[in-house]
Amino acid sequence: MINKLVEKIKKTGAPIVVGLDPMLNYIPQHVLDKAYAEYGETLEGAAEAVWQFNKEIVDKTYDLIPAVKPQIAMYEQFGIPGLMAFKKTVDYCKSKDLVIIGDVKRGDIGSTSAAYATAHLGKIKVGSKEYTPFGEDFATVNPYLGSDGVNPFVDVCKEEKKGLFILVKTSNPSSGEFQDRIIDGRPLYEWVGEKVAEWGADCMGDEYSYIGAVVGATYPEMGKVLREIMPKSYILVPGYGAQGGQGKDLVHFFNEDGLGAIVNSSRGIIAAYKQEAYAKFGPENFGDASRAAVEAMVADISGALAAAK
Amino acid sequence: MINKLVEKIKKTGAPIVVGLDPMLNYIPQHVLDKAYAEYGETLEGAAEAVWQFNKEIVDKTYDLIPAVKPQIAMYEQFGIPGLMAFKKTVDYCKSKDLVIIGDVKRGDIGSTSAAYATAHLGKIKVGSKEYTPFGEDFATVNPYLGSDGVNPFVDVCKEEKKGLFILVKTSNPSSGEFQDRIIDGRPLYEWVGEKVAEWGADCMGDEYSYIGAVVGATYPEMGKVLREIMPKSYILVPGYGAQGGQGKDLVHFFNEDGLGAIVNSSRGIIAAYKQEAYAKFGPENFGDASRAAVEAMVADISGALAAAK
Repeated sequence: MINKLVEKIKKTGAPIVVGLDPMLNYIPQHVLDKAYAEYGETLEGAAEAVWQFNKEIVDKTYDLIPAVKPQIAMYEQFGIPGLMAFKKTVDYCKSKDLVIIGDVKRGDIGSTSAAYATAHLGKIKVGSKEYTPFGEDFATVNPYLGSDGVNPFVDVCKEEKKGLFILVKTSNPSSGEFQDRIIDGRPLYEWVGEKVAEWGADCMGDEYSYIGAVVGATYPEMGKVLREIMPKSYILVPGYGAQGGQGKDLVHFFNEDGLGAIVNSSRGIIAAYKQEAYAKFGPENFGDASRAAVEAMVADISGALAAAK
Repeated sequence: MINKLVEKIKKTGAPIVVGLDPMLNYIPQHVLDKAYAEYGETLEGAAEAVWQFNKEIVDKTYDLIPAVKPQIAMYEQFGIPGLMAFKKTVDYCKSKDLVIIGDVKRGDIGSTSAAYATAHLGKIKVGSKEYTPFGEDFATVNPYLGSDGVNPFVDVCKEEKKGLFILVKTSNPSSGEFQDRIIDGRPLYEWVGEKVAEWGADCMGDEYSYIGAVVGATYPEMGKVLREIMPKSYILVPGYGAQGGQGKDLVHFFNEDGLGAIVNSSRGIIAAYKQEAYAKFGPENFGDASRAAVEAMVADISGALAAAK
């Protein structure tokens, strides 16, 4: 799947991923009204609004982008109907040939991690039959529990040719509370990065490993160091746009081949119509606003990469 | 909710929690057969088997125990039907007045952590209506992202009088890879423990804080130190039984009041009928085997606590 991701990034020229993290207050009123008219002000109504919102954004952007990253928390908060909208979104994106990064940040140990890996990347056997529970292509994973937590995910990735992005240095202000603490002269996130490189060495695709890392756009200097520690790991970079990161901050997350990083934007794309820059589209054309925001983001990052050459 | 948990532990004399982590190979054949006969070898069939298995164990043990801890990964692996069985299990345990610890190990930042907190501990607003997505009483949380990740959970706990157990030192062999690394002379898990005490100070119930910690039974010496670092935090202790911990290893996880810890057993209880000690019950009476295993576990831990006095 890492090969497909790299190939699609080359083909689109867009090292970006659209975060499908629909909050109800991102969804235009006419979409909410329609869903509530059909299902009432219920969890089913909210889930329908989320799904229709996602579908429009995917329809208007899928030809420009290699991948989407649905954040499962935003669906889980609507209970079972929300998770049905998550699954529907995954299936729809698959039908559009997009790579799907399930932003699930799961992590446990042994058979429990194996169950999460099965849920999101694998297949489950029921009697003599086999089923795909959620079927993403990549999953984000939390490393706090160590190799016992990560290895069951790696095993499923090897079997299914799927991939991981392991949290190394997150984009939030307080990520340093634990991640930046110094251990034998180096911050914890570097030790985690070393482990990611080690876990990934055994899972190589053509150019890059199946096992990638999450490093926040908000920490470009750390990104530079981590890029060198994990040369064969793709870096998923959150924190662009709304969280403050810009194209010029991101050049060191990439390798010299122009590959090695994929930058996420969620609110900046999916709620673009709420920004002044895209207000002209109006809420009724929110999908077109998202498309314009994708084009601007690709131009920003490509421009920064070209300028850095 | 911490007050209710403490009160129920005092009333039952059982500082234990039954981990409802149903793997298909724990479920007796007659339960599987019945579910598959009704729903086929489908995700729905597997979910029905899980639910019937849980129900029988709860029916046979609820009067002896204060709490259950369903591990959501074991349900998530069966997709939407699996998560419906999770919700059904939570609701049923609530009807039996059990405290429900959702072992979800979620953790993200900002609005995403808030969405997870809403999903598992809170209520979601849809238009003018409000719904409870999953409705557990406590949730387990991963601390790797720092305060930005934990605070949104704490906010929901304050509002809903719910609680957390934050991963501090996990029970698995490789937990030391990151958790034991030395920072300014002390292992990372102690720094996380300090933070748990700090987060918890602001959320006090009558005797204990809403904000507890997870510390594995397999590390009794570390448990002793962490008990002192977090005197007002309940410690959820996994790793008893199947993972190797025993009653005598656990005394230092408790305070002198005999409170402060709740010990989990999953496989050791729910798959008790598979152990030689309980083989006499047979697969058809698996619920009675679980009841006997609960009684033995309570005796082991109470005995160890009494001997230590």
